[in-house]
Amino acid sequence: MRWDRPPMLDATVSLPTWVRDAVDFEARYESDDEKMRLAIRLADENVLRKTGGPFGAAVFERGTGQLISVGVNSVVRLNNCTLHAEMVAYQLAQKRIQSYSLGTEGHPAHELFTSCEPCAMCLGATLWSGVQRVVIAASRDDAIAIGFDEGPVFAESYGYLRDRGVDVRHGVLRDEGRAVLQRYQDLGGPVYNG
Amino acid sequence: MRWDRPPMLDATVSLPTWVRDAVDFEARYESDDEKMRLAIRLADENVLRKTGGPFGAAVFERGTGQLISVGVNSVVRLNNCTLHAEMVAYQLAQKRIQSYSLGTEGHPAHELFTSCEPCAMCLGATLWSGVQRVVIAASRDDAIAIGFDEGPVFAESYGYLRDRGVDVRHGVLRDEGRAVLQRYQDLGGPVYNG
Repeated sequence: MRWDRPPMLDATVSLPTWVRDAVDFEARYESDDEKMRLAIRLADENVLRKTGGPFGAAVFERGTGQLISVGVNSVVRLNNCTLHAEMVAYQLAQKRIQSYSLGTEGHPAHELFTSCEPCAMCLGATLWSGVQRVVIAASRDDAIAIGFDEGPVFAESYGYLRDRGVDVRHGVLRDEGRAVLQRYQDLGGPVYNG
Repeated sequence: MRWDRPPMLDATVSLPTWVRDAVDFEARYESDDEKMRLAIRLADENVLRKTGGPFGAAVFERGTGQLISVGVNSVVRLNNCTLHAEMVAYQLAQKRIQSYSLGTEGHPAHELFTSCEPCAMCLGATLWSGVQRVVIAASRDDAIAIGFDEGPVFAESYGYLRDRGVDVRHGVLRDEGRAVLQRYQDLGGPVYNG
């Protein structure tokens, strides 16, 4: 039956439709807490509306606090294992600024806020994204506690990022980030590790 | 000026148009060498046609040798740092089989062939992809030699994959894979690390 389906030459990365109304792209986000609240609210909405896993992320311009893009986990909804919240946010930010790097010299610097510690894939993508800073709520252990695999991330992985100028802050609103994970588990959301 | 561009709610992952004519999706690919030759040819065409970095990949069904999807590096062409060849191949394979995992029980197993060792992001995605096997031509050191960063990949990273049932074979047609990297450098192709 598979052979009825022709080879695919393209795919679409899209946010759920509710995002358009749920996010104020004009607001200025001042503090780390305020920015993280958005990432966690996205994760929470994604769970409650059953559009994906309990993970949300957002990219901001540093300095101005301008929101550039958001992402929610879209693995199951779009049948695409690569669409973790951070990956969606990076791609949409780069499309918006029309560059494959959020760290181009002479342009504003950017930072990622994510409701949960990045997995191995997203940590790698963080390097390629060009963001200068990553801020994290729930921890790797929090994700593992509800059954998610986070992949091969080691202390050296963070050292590698640091050596290349990426600043990482852990544990901002960790309890709130963890509460979303817990809600997902309570609602019986699928654990979709490959 | 950026603020003239509205927030982005979707993005497209697409192969260059030449792929349609350059790949025979009906052929059966028998041996590791034959499968790798396709991945390397994709990398080479991508360089020669100036549609991206010197990296190609393909996903096959194990057992039958059926080609499921291909990928070429599309970072610069699509302004998207996540679109390494392996990432494109995984996404298009999952779209084709209509599942976020290429390793669903009761369905055929899959394997990835890549012209160069996966970076940290692609190695992470390999876990989530559900492929059972990864076959690699050029090495991490070969990529680094022409200026590419491969990210935080350690011996433990491969151990992590192995522990989860992913078999990795290195160095299949390594010289041919490396020759494509060399050609890219000779032609002055951009190194687009974030």
